[in-house]
Amino acid sequence: MKPSIPKGTRDFSPAEMVKRNFIFDTIKSAFQSCGYQQIETPAMENLSVLEGKYGEEGDRLLFRILNSGSLLETLKTANAGMPSGDITEKGLRYDLTVPFARYVVQHQNEISFPFKRFQVQPVWRADRPQKGRYREFYQCDADVIGSDSLLNEVELVQIISEVFTQLKIKVSIKLNNRKILSGIAEVIGEKDKIIDITVAIDKLDKIGLDKVNEELKGKGLPEKALAGLQPILNLSGSHSEKLAALKNILAASETGLTGIAEMQTLFDLVSGLASGMPCELDLTLARGLNYYTGTIIEVKADDPRSTFTSSVCGGGRYDDLTGIFGLKGMSGVGISFGADRIYDVMEEAGAFPDFSNVSTKILFVNFGDAEARYCLGLVGRLRKEGIHAELFPDTVKMAKQMKYADAKKIPFVALVGGEEMKTGNITVKTMGTGEQNTLNFEELLHLLKR
Amino acid sequence: MKPSIPKGTRDFSPAEMVKRNFIFDTIKSAFQSCGYQQIETPAMENLSVLEGKYGEEGDRLLFRILNSGSLLETLKTANAGMPSGDITEKGLRYDLTVPFARYVVQHQNEISFPFKRFQVQPVWRADRPQKGRYREFYQCDADVIGSDSLLNEVELVQIISEVFTQLKIKVSIKLNNRKILSGIAEVIGEKDKIIDITVAIDKLDKIGLDKVNEELKGKGLPEKALAGLQPILNLSGSHSEKLAALKNILAASETGLTGIAEMQTLFDLVSGLASGMPCELDLTLARGLNYYTGTIIEVKADDPRSTFTSSVCGGGRYDDLTGIFGLKGMSGVGISFGADRIYDVMEEAGAFPDFSNVSTKILFVNFGDAEARYCLGLVGRLRKEGIHAELFPDTVKMAKQMKYADAKKIPFVALVGGEEMKTGNITVKTMGTGEQNTLNFEELLHLLKR
Repeated sequence: MKPSIPKGTRDFSPAEMVKRNFIFDTIKSAFQSCGYQQIETPAMENLSVLEGKYGEEGDRLLFRILNSGSLLETLKTANAGMPSGDITEKGLRYDLTVPFARYVVQHQNEISFPFKRFQVQPVWRADRPQKGRYREFYQCDADVIGSDSLLNEVELVQIISEVFTQLKIKVSIKLNNRKILSGIAEVIGEKDKIIDITVAIDKLDKIGLDKVNEELKGKGLPEKALAGLQPILNLSGSHSEKLAALKNILAASETGLTGIAEMQTLFDLVSGLASGMPCELDLTLARGLNYYTGTIIEVKADDPRSTFTSSVCGGGRYDDLTGIFGLKGMSGVGISFGADRIYDVMEEAGAFPDFSNVSTKILFVNFGDAEARYCLGLVGRLRKEGIHAELFPDTVKMAKQMKYADAKKIPFVALVGGEEMKTGNITVKTMGTGEQNTLNFEELLHLLKR
Repeated sequence: MKPSIPKGTRDFSPAEMVKRNFIFDTIKSAFQSCGYQQIETPAMENLSVLEGKYGEEGDRLLFRILNSGSLLETLKTANAGMPSGDITEKGLRYDLTVPFARYVVQHQNEISFPFKRFQVQPVWRADRPQKGRYREFYQCDADVIGSDSLLNEVELVQIISEVFTQLKIKVSIKLNNRKILSGIAEVIGEKDKIIDITVAIDKLDKIGLDKVNEELKGKGLPEKALAGLQPILNLSGSHSEKLAALKNILAASETGLTGIAEMQTLFDLVSGLASGMPCELDLTLARGLNYYTGTIIEVKADDPRSTFTSSVCGGGRYDDLTGIFGLKGMSGVGISFGADRIYDVMEEAGAFPDFSNVSTKILFVNFGDAEARYCLGLVGRLRKEGIHAELFPDTVKMAKQMKYADAKKIPFVALVGGEEMKTGNITVKTMGTGEQNTLNFEELLHLLKR
């Protein structure tokens, strides 16, 4: 029986790794260009750090690690009815945000705030595996902590814009503000129905105004509140027009007006950027509603070459992230790129570039000991010039060696036998065309560097 | 109380990450230059894959993951005296070699052999934490599987040589061959004492010939065998001289002679390389003796600027790695770099280069809303030119902003106030000298690109 891997996990083949690295490197470059600094935290965190941070559902999805010591020991302890802490006290990180908060609190005296950090590492969730959902996946996060300036949001939008420009896929950037949502719930007198209201607004495009109103009535929203909500459901026009209209509707809510002012400033600054992608105001955007306190950001795939319209990046501002670990008053804002979803979109859209610079450029055929020894020198000289080169290790049939070059998509094969060893030339076969030429070393180098 | 991380694990700060990435990138480049392809495997493997592969000690050091489902459920199951399989069936990988073997067997039909793969990922061991030993650490492995040519060993030695040349630290590369050790044990008629013999040989330098002989006698080595061992203990000279002498001593052992021939070919090929570091024959090298079947490689730090003399890389040939998962007859050879130890040597030796290209090059001071908005454009233009640039997000006291630049080691600070906004110039302070100059954008660009 062949061995297998745990469900919901994946092996990544060389061809997949090259593409994944392209995505990671693009994101990292954009982070670094804006002064974000990389950190890494351990895969395991103490359960006291992880538990209670992701809600009941999250606690259930934590992968817990058995305490070390023999398994027998562990089972005996469990049998003796010991509290669970005695069999497990560590878990695999569930996201990068809580470990980051823990990092900031633990290292607060070494950090110079505002702290702009990025982190690209896997996370683990004991979720039911399904198409496109994994138990191990990478997150690519950038956060600024210790600054409440909207310039941070501007910069994060710039990063999003830069990343998807570099990756050459079309996305739409949607912005909202938690304070506007709070303001809406406030002015219609239904503060505690904020989630029902945003869920219903979210369906407006799909099911229409009547059905939305019906649904809200069903959720127990009184007639008066529903009437108050109509102008919001009917908002249209550009984001400036929507914000202007909202300003009247939310005139009685201080929180709502603050949210509108923040959005206005953000749109204003973002639209002033030379190279930014357009952003849109999306009042239905309610991701992480229990979590975010100001700006909410979501980026959806919107590429004509791909059917995926899923969220490829998201984030927002949170006012008290490190408060859970005892460090109060640190406002933060961050975004997280979903590398797996970006990969799927790029694959379907055919957006990946040619990666021939990563893989081997030329394979030297192995005709025998003397020839191999001679080729070792040539291979070494090419590598010194930055060319990825290989000598086939075994003296086997030519067909097998050519098959290897083919499978590895190596574009050139060098044939160096007795004749070439005498003249110092190299016979080179171009795999794409089958063309064969005899070149000297300089000419070969020129060909490979082209 | 401040939160903490599990013992034996580490956070890596931005300054550490830059240095670690430098090591990883150098190793990866050397692998890629020789046609090795990257793969990644999941952090968790099924216990059926991991267990029994690392000996009893290894099994004890595996981190086991509790099956998902509520913890209460798990404890109930354990209480009911269920077999351990019901509470845990997954573990964190202990090294990269067994997952690689599993990968090769699982994906054998997609792989074109010989398969040259590299892998750079963390591994976990529930070892007792101590100085320099961690429960989570990275391994950087390259292996070729499906070829028994010594050219693979030559290439791995080349990679080692290239990596430490690039990292600018001095190491010594030691080679041995399991077949020579087997031959020695064979000719003195003590096949099963091979480990005692190599352990004793290993102490020759430290305790001298007499004490070594005493120790071997104590281990029960008969007089006759001890007498047979003396010519080996007295070997001296260059590796060619040693090998020539060994050829006589091991004349009666076919295995021994094969080992000598392999070593001779390897030294011969390696010494023919233009840029190789010198290698030495070290008969005391017995790492992974139960595991390796041919060449054994060990690289020790040997830098005059550092006190560390630990092993920074090691490897060897194994004849049947994938056999444990049912795929027979695949010879392989590989090496593994220890990034943590390399880091310690480089740190002590002061071998890390200047990393100013990774971090932020220039910080724009934030004097207020209008100035910040103006600076956003300049920052954007600089980033487009590949310059890592930041605008301080908050309008706070100048001293605080300068302190931030200082802590982040940002070499230049731009001061753009009303005067600069009028003229289009930028006043730049060089942090190292305190010097202040007013430049136009092109001059600034020139300065930052220098």
